[in-house]
Amino acid sequence: MRWDDIDKQVCSVARALSVVGERWTMLIIRDAFLGTRRFDQFQSNLGVTRHRLSERLTKLVEHGVLVKVPYQDRPVRYEYRLTRKGLGLYPVLMSLARWGDDWMDKDQGAPLEYVHQTCGNKTHPVLACSECVEPLKPEAVTPQ
Amino acid sequence: MRWDDIDKQVCSVARALSVVGERWTMLIIRDAFLGTRRFDQFQSNLGVTRHRLSERLTKLVEHGVLVKVPYQDRPVRYEYRLTRKGLGLYPVLMSLARWGDDWMDKDQGAPLEYVHQTCGNKTHPVLACSECVEPLKPEAVTPQ
Repeated sequence: MRWDDIDKQVCSVARALSVVGERWTMLIIRDAFLGTRRFDQFQSNLGVTRHRLSERLTKLVEHGVLVKVPYQDRPVRYEYRLTRKGLGLYPVLMSLARWGDDWMDKDQGAPLEYVHQTCGNKTHPVLACSECVEPLKPEAVTPQ
Repeated sequence: MRWDDIDKQVCSVARALSVVGERWTMLIIRDAFLGTRRFDQFQSNLGVTRHRLSERLTKLVEHGVLVKVPYQDRPVRYEYRLTRKGLGLYPVLMSLARWGDDWMDKDQGAPLEYVHQTCGNKTHPVLACSECVEPLKPEAVTPQ
């Protein structure tokens, strides 16, 4: 199978990765969550080539993860904003951050901490069951 | 910045992606969670080239996500098992699956359902606060 065909797998992980599973894409989304909106900002944050960045942004717009919105008329210029579909990637991003914190911190601790405004505490995001609210462990979950 | 240097960013998302952010890698990990252990099984499930698969598995072993364990003596043959670090990717995988279910189901519903053995219910994994157990929404979380 070619990578370009993985969205044809009857698998939600494969379908998700067909949109966000390439180099740079999740870093673009990370930056979007942190407030980056304009091409040049993405480019200077990431240091990726303009060609690659343009390709990735176009794909994210095509898939409805980002939306292009004009912010200037003459000449017309656009910025990129997360859609609801894009905002839905928050758990993916935070799970990656948590794993990076736990396993890739080079013994220097987490570079960012997260405060949950709802309860006021420093939070460590946990994947929980929608029904019983207990943390989900792979051995206790059966796919069917 | 070249992609190979993204682990040098002081960012847990970038560090995580330096290990799992390439094409195929998360699909290898998905298959490992579903019980695949041997090279030929991965290859026939994924249809990726042997060269690419070998490169990805080697990297996952180098980073301690998978461990190579001999399962046969003459000739010696190895299988790949998830380590604790690898099992720690479960929330990333399930968050991708959930997003795929929600946004990429082609209106046919989720291809897999998950039963949480602890409570006996069909579960929809949710990212929750470790402190107050409420679902985490991006607008209620402040990085610092």
